[in-house]
Amino acid sequence: MKNNGNTFGTNFSVTTFGESHGVALGCIIDGCPAGIELSEEIIQKALNRRRPGLSPDGKLNAAVTARTEADAVEILSGVFEGRTTGTPIALEVRNTSQHSKDYGNLDLTFRPGHADYTYDVKYGGCRDYRGGGRSSGRETLARVAGGAVAAQLLAQRGIKITAYTIRAAGISAEKRDLSQIEQNALRAPDNEAAARMNAKIEELRAAGDSAGGIIECIVQGCPVGLGEPAFDKLDANLAKAMLSIGAVKGFEIGDGFAAADSFGSTNNDCMHAENGQPVFDSNHAGGVLGGLSSGADIIFRVAVKPVPSIFKPQQTVRRTGEFGEDGKAQYETTELQIKGRHDICLCPRIVPVVEAMTALVLADFLLRNTH
Amino acid sequence: MKNNGNTFGTNFSVTTFGESHGVALGCIIDGCPAGIELSEEIIQKALNRRRPGLSPDGKLNAAVTARTEADAVEILSGVFEGRTTGTPIALEVRNTSQHSKDYGNLDLTFRPGHADYTYDVKYGGCRDYRGGGRSSGRETLARVAGGAVAAQLLAQRGIKITAYTIRAAGISAEKRDLSQIEQNALRAPDNEAAARMNAKIEELRAAGDSAGGIIECIVQGCPVGLGEPAFDKLDANLAKAMLSIGAVKGFEIGDGFAAADSFGSTNNDCMHAENGQPVFDSNHAGGVLGGLSSGADIIFRVAVKPVPSIFKPQQTVRRTGEFGEDGKAQYETTELQIKGRHDICLCPRIVPVVEAMTALVLADFLLRNTH
Amino acid sequence: MKNNGNTFGTNFSVTTFGESHGVALGCIIDGCPAGIELSEEIIQKALNRRRPGLSPDGKLNAAVTARTEADAVEILSGVFEGRTTGTPIALEVRNTSQHSKDYGNLDLTFRPGHADYTYDVKYGGCRDYRGGGRSSGRETLARVAGGAVAAQLLAQRGIKITAYTIRAAGISAEKRDLSQIEQNALRAPDNEAAARMNAKIEELRAAGDSAGGIIECIVQGCPVGLGEPAFDKLDANLAKAMLSIGAVKGFEIGDGFAAADSFGSTNNDCMHAENGQPVFDSNHAGGVLGGLSSGADIIFRVAVKPVPSIFKPQQTVRRTGEFGEDGKAQYETTELQIKGRHDICLCPRIVPVVEAMTALVLADFLLRNTH
Amino acid sequence: MKNNGNTFGTNFSVTTFGESHGVALGCIIDGCPAGIELSEEIIQKALNRRRPGLSPDGKLNAAVTARTEADAVEILSGVFEGRTTGTPIALEVRNTSQHSKDYGNLDLTFRPGHADYTYDVKYGGCRDYRGGGRSSGRETLARVAGGAVAAQLLAQRGIKITAYTIRAAGISAEKRDLSQIEQNALRAPDNEAAARMNAKIEELRAAGDSAGGIIECIVQGCPVGLGEPAFDKLDANLAKAMLSIGAVKGFEIGDGFAAADSFGSTNNDCMHAENGQPVFDSNHAGGVLGGLSSGADIIFRVAVKPVPSIFKPQQTVRRTGEFGEDGKAQYETTELQIKGRHDICLCPRIVPVVEAMTALVLADFLLRNTH
Repeated sequence: MKNNGNTFGTNFSVTTFGESHGVALGCIIDGCPAGIELSEEIIQKALNRRRPGLSPDGKLNAAVTARTEADAVEILSGVFEGRTTGTPIALEVRNTSQHSKDYGNLDLTFRPGHADYTYDVKYGGCRDYRGGGRSSGRETLARVAGGAVAAQLLAQRGIKITAYTIRAAGISAEKRDLSQIEQNALRAPDNEAAARMNAKIEELRAAGDSAGGIIECIVQGCPVGLGEPAFDKLDANLAKAMLSIGAVKGFEIGDGFAAADSFGSTNNDCMHAENGQPVFDSNHAGGVLGGLSSGADIIFRVAVKPVPSIFKPQQTVRRTGEFGEDGKAQYETTELQIKGRHDICLCPRIVPVVEAMTALVLADFLLRNTH
Repeated sequence: MKNNGNTFGTNFSVTTFGESHGVALGCIIDGCPAGIELSEEIIQKALNRRRPGLSPDGKLNAAVTARTEADAVEILSGVFEGRTTGTPIALEVRNTSQHSKDYGNLDLTFRPGHADYTYDVKYGGCRDYRGGGRSSGRETLARVAGGAVAAQLLAQRGIKITAYTIRAAGISAEKRDLSQIEQNALRAPDNEAAARMNAKIEELRAAGDSAGGIIECIVQGCPVGLGEPAFDKLDANLAKAMLSIGAVKGFEIGDGFAAADSFGSTNNDCMHAENGQPVFDSNHAGGVLGGLSSGADIIFRVAVKPVPSIFKPQQTVRRTGEFGEDGKAQYETTELQIKGRHDICLCPRIVPVVEAMTALVLADFLLRNTH
Repeated sequence: MKNNGNTFGTNFSVTTFGESHGVALGCIIDGCPAGIELSEEIIQKALNRRRPGLSPDGKLNAAVTARTEADAVEILSGVFEGRTTGTPIALEVRNTSQHSKDYGNLDLTFRPGHADYTYDVKYGGCRDYRGGGRSSGRETLARVAGGAVAAQLLAQRGIKITAYTIRAAGISAEKRDLSQIEQNALRAPDNEAAARMNAKIEELRAAGDSAGGIIECIVQGCPVGLGEPAFDKLDANLAKAMLSIGAVKGFEIGDGFAAADSFGSTNNDCMHAENGQPVFDSNHAGGVLGGLSSGADIIFRVAVKPVPSIFKPQQTVRRTGEFGEDGKAQYETTELQIKGRHDICLCPRIVPVVEAMTALVLADFLLRNTH
Repeated sequence: MKNNGNTFGTNFSVTTFGESHGVALGCIIDGCPAGIELSEEIIQKALNRRRPGLSPDGKLNAAVTARTEADAVEILSGVFEGRTTGTPIALEVRNTSQHSKDYGNLDLTFRPGHADYTYDVKYGGCRDYRGGGRSSGRETLARVAGGAVAAQLLAQRGIKITAYTIRAAGISAEKRDLSQIEQNALRAPDNEAAARMNAKIEELRAAGDSAGGIIECIVQGCPVGLGEPAFDKLDANLAKAMLSIGAVKGFEIGDGFAAADSFGSTNNDCMHAENGQPVFDSNHAGGVLGGLSSGADIIFRVAVKPVPSIFKPQQTVRRTGEFGEDGKAQYETTELQIKGRHDICLCPRIVPVVEAMTALVLADFLLRNTH
């Protein structure tokens, strides 16, 4: 780890800051090469994709929350006359729409499925509990901003990253028509399935409940050899990047868990030569061999848990502020009724975060010099 | 990443070296506190668990390879009068049983499902191809040695790690009797299921094929708050640690991919207070909240692919050594018949590696000082 | 190194950003423990000490530049209700007084003694040349802000850092009266010597020239054992921290270069016991033994070069924008007359930077957990 | 810092291990590119230069100790058929000549000027006290081995590093004839001055005392732009590398401390163009501008303290093993008479260590990819 867990990457690194209801969120990107075209417009476009409350047609939709603020990004350094200078790029987004009162009762009462309790213990009770503070999904805003810069670098090299929802609320996409991803509120590659996902999500909203799903990501145009044995394998760093996203509970590459039931004779991707160059006959491995990119498309999936903020009353504990004879903080059982505004299914908003983290992983490896 | 991918960990770090058929394999452990009891016997005991060809009753068994060498470890530094001194602990295992001739035809011909091709490209053709060289599963020997030292530190803190095979060759364990793990060649917590797994593996051996499986790991006694937001979440680092193991293609924590089909009202782990202390009513999260250990048992699973070395002829490519007009190395289609000695199912040998990597992740976080 | 050179520290780390004439400068502090008292007032007080153009009595003085802007700091994250939360602390200072026109002729003409030429080559000509951009002394503003947070942590532990000018423009302080440091414009522990330094600096100003000097720093109250063998010795990291300050050309600890002419019988610091505790009879080592703090005061000195921006015409080169047949950028000889506002002697302004970097080094080691 | 201080470098990294009287010393080099010619002969040649007790003519000489062992290096991994493979290179040197009895009385008695006391406190009394254990100068053997590999990489790029003694026992070299460095036991670029240094060292030996000195290092052929602002400046990392050598107490680059008394008009290195390329008129900066290599020769000096092991009786403290009511370990005053074999002046043996550490710093920067 980096020890101070708010930096991701070594050669192309992003250090993020900010709480859900603090003054601002943002990041410093360090290691970006000089001479890359960059502007606030480019980054804003990426941020707008993760903005709450927006479907591609601009209407509020079933999948996402009602919080709608500008999330306007400002470049503070590292860009001069429209190009990067090789110095740190600081990005900032001011918070403009805090409803802190919604969270007034959460200073000592811990929401089930959230980081409230573990943060309270780890940081000795010193935490910004408003909207989950640092552990809020809003932290991913800084990741998307950083990822947008990485994407500029990858675009130069012809690398394309596309993520999409393949399952939500128990309903699967039945095709992979990438042209449809931005045509529906779920960011699914199947408009028809997306409509059914949306209907199911509406039912859950009415019931005060929430849903999870699965996101798939494909990377096209990656050169052979990205990744660093033995521990910094490409798939290892992708797994870390994905599990570092709050709601993600699982990662698999290529055939993933299905490979556990396969046989070597089926699972191996044989090769043949075409015009003197190697070609894979299949891609069960998902584009990685021995932790290095193989030149085949990189394909992986992540499991997204249901939104923990639901509107049904839940049993939880409250720290009383007293201490036992053994010095331990004391807790009492209580019931919690969450208020405020919340997503029902995170998939469509996590899609750009998955793309951003993937871009950060690849940019970091691309700048690794082994010659 | 660490940039030079052969180091894992920041506070408790392990740097490994060695190839399958080189002079020796080993590691340097840096950051281990002073005063911890350590001896070659303690490490050797862990190494023996991953030794090829051994079942708990000492008989060669169906699951693993025929390569049987001593793998005797030597401590070169960092231990004085039976205790660690806080200085680097260097461990070494000399290779004593190389059958290099088995690999004579693999210098330019790339085994399907192995790292041969990607290494050949990444390192410009300079590689030790014997037995897969650095990409051989034998590299995990150094991880297990390092993990044995980490386990000494964790034992001091009352933390216990147990991994076991829950599925192999398409057959699942039907119970979790941890007392049976070392009683069968699969390291399954279910002797009866293990017998059926073994029978299926024997069939595959006869057919010249191989199998995969799923390993589960449980961590008991972990304190609340291990993990570092936002990127070095405990589950993120576990995912990286697991995917850094060659044959692992997937990771999930708690309900994992099943959580994608669950609802917030089901998936949230509610809490209540007992004697003033918080208790979780369930453990769908797998012992992690917001990337920090919650005090509940940590439970995760990894998907293990089938052994790529099979004894059926396979189509692959061979680098001819010539170069095209565009300067590109040229390849030709060829057929490969693998010889030598190989596992049929890696699960029982990966079980100690999963435990070792988990110990390394936890030791690293335990030594993270946030006060 | 950190690879992306804008982060300093591992456990208590600071990542800085910003150019002299950009939108803002600032930093992210990561790893600061939760619960430490912090406010904009505390940081502002430190920033004001390095502000240009101010002597302790508030009057403009001989030693420093005429650029006078507020340098008002804003805390963007990581502090809640007056205390740190253990999450990243982002600090920002907006630039409010840019005279970019002063630098209009410096895009391709390189000032002697400055980083202009090396940056131009390293970053392929993509650089913010206004006021030196990233290489400006103004970058130290972010270090002082970060150091102010570290100092809050050190104060908790009873560690006190004091730096002061012991030589400037060839004139030495003749005593070490620390109470006089903030009483004179040179920050010398000797008001009388400071007056003579000031007079000499006025002469140099009139002649369009500049001066260097030597700064000494003493650390009191440091516990025994800070530092990490073999490479991260306390004095090694202090040396790095000091040489990372633009104008610093030398570092020595304890007797430093004088020790080269000493003898073992003189240079060794013998010990005796008082009330059962060890006491050093002397401190030739400067408070460090084997790279670890010894409990004695830590004393070191840094050499500060003369300000490179002088008002005499200087010969230098200009990049013409053309390229030779070998593809090399072409340069021509030219004469440069620097305009704008500049320091004559940097010592008084580097004193707080030396203190800040020392605080960052010590905070980083203090949070290193070896148990 | 790296947190575990036994690794140096990020892109080209060396992790060292071993104690003076342990089983072996050595290192793992990670990040060395594939395809570089390497053999035990090449590394052995470098190790022989730091071997104790050898002058260029092979005779024992005045400057160095009587300990004479083979220090035979073995390559354990990372080299195949005479070339590096891009995987970790493990190097090992077995200890063969331990006279542990010489150190029997040093387990609780702390030698003045050594790391004994600080290590004893830091590591809670768990330390290998024999010959200083990990803090022995013998640890530099692993640095020289690692530096020899870095030197192979630098030689490919036309970079040449040369260090030499310019002052010892108060006597200075009066010329810089690099051809004479290996012609005298002091490794001075002036045979005549070396003879006088040697004579003075003989006097000190007879008196049971020891001497210090100054080593200068010059780097030729370094490209423009090595170094990473703001903190990982080339001179900052060189300073750290040098102060990480046990006996070094000071570092200066270019004019160093002399620059503190200079003026801007003198100290600035003006430039002019020759055949369209920039040329420096002088080199007061020592080859570094703004922390980046400028293309001029890199020149720096280090101060070496007198050997702390002297044969005069010295007052010191002994830990009694008892503890006070406050739980503090108790110490008593004692007199120490050091026995065994020791250097009188370290300069000639530190010369290869300075070269090795310089090679490690440069190799690390050379592999930093900023494009």
